[in-house]
Amino acid sequence: MHIGQNLRVRFIWEKYGWRPLLLFALYDAFIGLLYGPLNIHWLDIPWQPVATLGTAVAFYIGFKSNASYSRFWEARQLWGAVVNSSRTWAGRALDFVRTPDDNYHYDSAELAAHRRLVYRHIAWVNALRLHLRRQTAELWQTDVVPFLLDPADHALGQANNPPAQLVIRQGHDLRRLSFDNMLTEFREVSMAETLRELNNHQGACERIKNTPFPRQYAFFSYVFVMIFALLLPLGLVEEFDHRVALGPYHVWLMVPFATLVSWVFHTIEKVGHNSENPFENLENDVSMSAICRSIEIDLRQMLSETDLPKPLQPVADVLY
Amino acid sequence: MHIGQNLRVRFIWEKYGWRPLLLFALYDAFIGLLYGPLNIHWLDIPWQPVATLGTAVAFYIGFKSNASYSRFWEARQLWGAVVNSSRTWAGRALDFVRTPDDNYHYDSAELAAHRRLVYRHIAWVNALRLHLRRQTAELWQTDVVPFLLDPADHALGQANNPPAQLVIRQGHDLRRLSFDNMLTEFREVSMAETLRELNNHQGACERIKNTPFPRQYAFFSYVFVMIFALLLPLGLVEEFDHRVALGPYHVWLMVPFATLVSWVFHTIEKVGHNSENPFENLENDVSMSAICRSIEIDLRQMLSETDLPKPLQPVADVLY
Amino acid sequence: MHIGQNLRVRFIWEKYGWRPLLLFALYDAFIGLLYGPLNIHWLDIPWQPVATLGTAVAFYIGFKSNASYSRFWEARQLWGAVVNSSRTWAGRALDFVRTPDDNYHYDSAELAAHRRLVYRHIAWVNALRLHLRRQTAELWQTDVVPFLLDPADHALGQANNPPAQLVIRQGHDLRRLSFDNMLTEFREVSMAETLRELNNHQGACERIKNTPFPRQYAFFSYVFVMIFALLLPLGLVEEFDHRVALGPYHVWLMVPFATLVSWVFHTIEKVGHNSENPFENLENDVSMSAICRSIEIDLRQMLSETDLPKPLQPVADVLY
Amino acid sequence: MHIGQNLRVRFIWEKYGWRPLLLFALYDAFIGLLYGPLNIHWLDIPWQPVATLGTAVAFYIGFKSNASYSRFWEARQLWGAVVNSSRTWAGRALDFVRTPDDNYHYDSAELAAHRRLVYRHIAWVNALRLHLRRQTAELWQTDVVPFLLDPADHALGQANNPPAQLVIRQGHDLRRLSFDNMLTEFREVSMAETLRELNNHQGACERIKNTPFPRQYAFFSYVFVMIFALLLPLGLVEEFDHRVALGPYHVWLMVPFATLVSWVFHTIEKVGHNSENPFENLENDVSMSAICRSIEIDLRQMLSETDLPKPLQPVADVLY
Amino acid sequence: MHIGQNLRVRFIWEKYGWRPLLLFALYDAFIGLLYGPLNIHWLDIPWQPVATLGTAVAFYIGFKSNASYSRFWEARQLWGAVVNSSRTWAGRALDFVRTPDDNYHYDSAELAAHRRLVYRHIAWVNALRLHLRRQTAELWQTDVVPFLLDPADHALGQANNPPAQLVIRQGHDLRRLSFDNMLTEFREVSMAETLRELNNHQGACERIKNTPFPRQYAFFSYVFVMIFALLLPLGLVEEFDHRVALGPYHVWLMVPFATLVSWVFHTIEKVGHNSENPFENLENDVSMSAICRSIEIDLRQMLSETDLPKPLQPVADVLY
Repeated sequence: MHIGQNLRVRFIWEKYGWRPLLLFALYDAFIGLLYGPLNIHWLDIPWQPVATLGTAVAFYIGFKSNASYSRFWEARQLWGAVVNSSRTWAGRALDFVRTPDDNYHYDSAELAAHRRLVYRHIAWVNALRLHLRRQTAELWQTDVVPFLLDPADHALGQANNPPAQLVIRQGHDLRRLSFDNMLTEFREVSMAETLRELNNHQGACERIKNTPFPRQYAFFSYVFVMIFALLLPLGLVEEFDHRVALGPYHVWLMVPFATLVSWVFHTIEKVGHNSENPFENLENDVSMSAICRSIEIDLRQMLSETDLPKPLQPVADVLY
Repeated sequence: MHIGQNLRVRFIWEKYGWRPLLLFALYDAFIGLLYGPLNIHWLDIPWQPVATLGTAVAFYIGFKSNASYSRFWEARQLWGAVVNSSRTWAGRALDFVRTPDDNYHYDSAELAAHRRLVYRHIAWVNALRLHLRRQTAELWQTDVVPFLLDPADHALGQANNPPAQLVIRQGHDLRRLSFDNMLTEFREVSMAETLRELNNHQGACERIKNTPFPRQYAFFSYVFVMIFALLLPLGLVEEFDHRVALGPYHVWLMVPFATLVSWVFHTIEKVGHNSENPFENLENDVSMSAICRSIEIDLRQMLSETDLPKPLQPVADVLY
Repeated sequence: MHIGQNLRVRFIWEKYGWRPLLLFALYDAFIGLLYGPLNIHWLDIPWQPVATLGTAVAFYIGFKSNASYSRFWEARQLWGAVVNSSRTWAGRALDFVRTPDDNYHYDSAELAAHRRLVYRHIAWVNALRLHLRRQTAELWQTDVVPFLLDPADHALGQANNPPAQLVIRQGHDLRRLSFDNMLTEFREVSMAETLRELNNHQGACERIKNTPFPRQYAFFSYVFVMIFALLLPLGLVEEFDHRVALGPYHVWLMVPFATLVSWVFHTIEKVGHNSENPFENLENDVSMSAICRSIEIDLRQMLSETDLPKPLQPVADVLY
Repeated sequence: MHIGQNLRVRFIWEKYGWRPLLLFALYDAFIGLLYGPLNIHWLDIPWQPVATLGTAVAFYIGFKSNASYSRFWEARQLWGAVVNSSRTWAGRALDFVRTPDDNYHYDSAELAAHRRLVYRHIAWVNALRLHLRRQTAELWQTDVVPFLLDPADHALGQANNPPAQLVIRQGHDLRRLSFDNMLTEFREVSMAETLRELNNHQGACERIKNTPFPRQYAFFSYVFVMIFALLLPLGLVEEFDHRVALGPYHVWLMVPFATLVSWVFHTIEKVGHNSENPFENLENDVSMSAICRSIEIDLRQMLSETDLPKPLQPVADVLY
Repeated sequence: MHIGQNLRVRFIWEKYGWRPLLLFALYDAFIGLLYGPLNIHWLDIPWQPVATLGTAVAFYIGFKSNASYSRFWEARQLWGAVVNSSRTWAGRALDFVRTPDDNYHYDSAELAAHRRLVYRHIAWVNALRLHLRRQTAELWQTDVVPFLLDPADHALGQANNPPAQLVIRQGHDLRRLSFDNMLTEFREVSMAETLRELNNHQGACERIKNTPFPRQYAFFSYVFVMIFALLLPLGLVEEFDHRVALGPYHVWLMVPFATLVSWVFHTIEKVGHNSENPFENLENDVSMSAICRSIEIDLRQMLSETDLPKPLQPVADVLY
């Protein structure tokens, strides 16, 4: 996620700028060459259908912008919800899990259970991040295992869906605590509700990850912009040619303007395209790494730990 | 659901391409023939009302694109919710259903009950898929019955609404477990909440299936595009005719451009049309078969089974 | 609700076709008469303000289409939710209402209570339908009373709001069952939650019924389309007149084109208008009768009844 | 809220009609005077930027229409939710509040408690209406106090937020009933959930009331329409002037058409503006008085009262 | 938040007016100078691509207006939800926390607990405000500490996330009260539900604060408006120049009109831009200070306090 006030010029230039600009300029110059010096005048078409096409295409890429932005924003909301549920889970773990004595102060069994439940939750958050970014194989050992205090959980990285299995383990832990009389039935069901929320957040993230913006919408959006860019110089060339301020050279003035208008349409399409998939480890991603770290800090502070890691910092204005 | 990065050219050509292109080209050529060689000049109409019509039609098909996409996306969200509720159901079955002893380890009665509840849930997921695709009659035996461990459930394929009756059976099973002291009242109600969720997901899918995008909206969207395509060459023909680069042949240049613009409008309409109904076993469907398989794998892994089926693979870039 | 793949031509013609087409044709011909034969040339106005007006009006009727469709879809969602809650209610009635013995099999007191609660629910669904369609007076005896097994409920047809009073009766029945030790406190509250849902569904339907699409929006949408249709031939007439292919008769060509464009705008407005009110017993309605029947079938099948009615069939492609 | 099928002509004329029409006509005539008789020809500007401006302004007022309508509709949904929660509250009061005997029939303590809880709720509904319309000072005695059976509540009209304090009193009453063994803990918490809903409905109404549609959006929407109306005759005047059917008088034809187009844009803006604030006791309001009365009737019928007030009737097609 | 009926002229002028107006006027005059007096006629480009560009840009800034407004409105909804949850929290604290005697009247232990829980909640509301506005360091002592009756809480201002830690403390207080037999298990879980809501509200506010409107959308929206403003005079200059009413000076008339149209587009963009971030302590903010004060007044009135602060007043029509 970009966090700078503005995008960096170089980033724009590399990501949105030179390639399409060059492409459109070459094509538009080619048309100018045919029409002007080479005098192939039947290339000229009336402007009106180009304008009507432009309106329809503007609608379509506007619709795509909207839908892509909604995908990004839903993804961000889901990770916001992960933050909220994390705090709720930690709070309930600390307050609801109790040894059946009359002593308010935490004893060692309570402290161990609290720590195990909260750390496994931090593991889940990181496992979900790896799962969505398809990095489980490389990073499970370094990013998840350190938070799995129960060695029996370490092997879950091999499962079809590691974070889903971790939620199941949390449920089994609650069941165990209830057998051990550290969790009453009512409080157990209340914590199981939070597990239900975690399942919902995870499933919704997977849905966005696994269901791309429907290909037919995405594909034609691109095709229509290209058709518009193809017709644009044909519609403009005669308008420029009949002006005479620059004599026979006037037709070349069409090139920068056609290029610019094509580029605007193309960029609108591309901005939408780049926001479609928010879990790809790219610069438009939801900053899952930073959110995971922030959850870790808050939850460990709730456990009264003081040796905490630092928040992640952006790299070249991008927070991952 | 298409999952390739782009649609295949052949798919586009067959599904969106040659038929409307041919149709529009023939019609536009016919107008060119009348106006040019046959000299029927009263066919020419001013461009302005065509442009205004084009704007209004662009609005209308934009609205339809939006609504169709929303239908698809809601359908996908519902199956995402089915995934989530499946995990929650399995988790609760494993944790909440207990024989009333003090032993934390699963005994055989627990294992049998867990397996029955989880397998019947996998049966429900598949039954819902068949119900939405109207395939219950053909596929009930192969796709649902293997997961129905209780033979009394096998006959439900005859019911008016098999998946709804399966949810009822899950409830009866909970009731039975509560009579057998394997499920406390509070935990039973909590699992009944998950059954409520399943009812909601199923009912919402049926709503989308049974209520097509309102026919009046869909019908006129198509009619308006066709009216626009009919008027388009009439508005353009004179503009091309009065250009002279190609002499009397210039009028024929109108044909490719009118065809292209008509095709863009037609395709926007058609893309929307093809996304309207997400449960038809077509290539734009929600990939219910793959989701059912994925649920089966995850849930059986939660039961500690190891002999698991493989995820479904896409066929020609389409996942069903 | 229309359920055919396409609307019937005759339906279109009667509902959307001949009246506005005739009206616009007459008006446009009148303008043609004044301008052409009668030579009243000051009638001609420039096209530009008409085009700008057309864009603004297209926006406005697009907005109205959207809002009207949302009203229809919300209404349909609500009846989908009624279906879901019906299944949940029946499931809970069957599972939660128990005589306080250790016998899992239904005894006669249980069967009677289950049937009473489920039938009264079917009565509520039908009463809500009658209430929304303002048919309580005529159809209460035939459509609701047969499902009211407790004669004390029959008189509720006289109440200000019969379905709301039926929900109250369901609550009183739960209270009675709890006094009779057939419903534990916790299960009673859980069923009262479902009654809360029913109240919410009913109230939301009443809101849509009682609050028309705000009159100021609806009224001006119609007025603006009419203003556009009034100005349209004035803006077009000169364009057609200065063409000469048909000599003095050319001006009459304006009539069919102006009529067609007016009709498209008018139809967009009208399609929205016809979808605004989804509970009017018209052909664009939510098909409440069919839904009620379908609920009856499913719920009675849950009671293990076998003598079930048939689903409602569409009449001339319309399901009511 | 308007409830007639159409708005009354006189209402339109007074509210939307003569003032802006007169204003625009005077301004447009003034431009006509300068350009025509006074021959100040430099006033004429090309039409193109006016058209582009018109498109942008159409977008902006379309956006505002949408947002204003959403505000109205959310307000109406909230009062629909108030209706639903009212029925749920009354149902729970009647069913859950019980003296701890085995007698199903209501005894006098029960009847008194039910009536107190239900009447205080009717008081809350009316107090909320007065609070939103800023009428607490004038109408508290007549519209709220009659429903406050406990004299200690009468003074709450002086509080900073009377309806919020009434909800607190309902909670205290539940607490008291639980001390008196008339409400079990579990049922008390369930009723407290309904109080939470009431808080949510009330707070959402206050949010809409206290947060106007952001002033910057509203202000510029008006300004842009005015700028468009200012430029419109300048762009049109030459087009009309160069037509000659009426000789030098032709320029005056610009006046009615410019006025009409300006008025359409202005009216779209104004319709949105008038729907922005749904709690102002004006004719576009949510009909809170009628809803309050309807709640009173239904709830008192639930208490088996028969001496009920009549529903409120619309005044000049407007229901308040 | 602006609360005046209209924005103040001076505010408009300073915030939206003179800078862009001056900039556009200078640029447009520069083009006029080149084209007119300096006779550089090749600067003139046809209007058509400018119009098409204008339509596409209008779409894009319309989309941005919508998204920005949604951000503001979601932020406002969240603080409305904070108000609602505050009332619910206070109501539950007062009703649910009880010493285990049979005496309905509040005793001193109850009064102390109620006050501690409600005051800590007021502290949380203010801490959240400071956290979102990044003012914790300066204002913690004056705005939060006075409401922290338990001195152990004072140090939380040093935490990574003070309001999140305050919610944890509320949970610990509930745990303590349950050990002290002042809160039953069921009521404790019900209050923990409200803490869950508070976590959700806080997390959603943080999400809006920490995730700016995606930079690529925001950046290109500005760039496109600027490109449009750059091309606008080039497209208009010839149209004005060929008019002759003012002779060679006529070209200068282009300047005010081009400036005005550029300014409208720029202002639409800027209004959206200014609403993007609702927690910045600027004049378009959600009025969090006023809401905090209003919560304080209502909650202390619920505690029967009478020495209450006054509501915050707007400063120059802006409520902070």
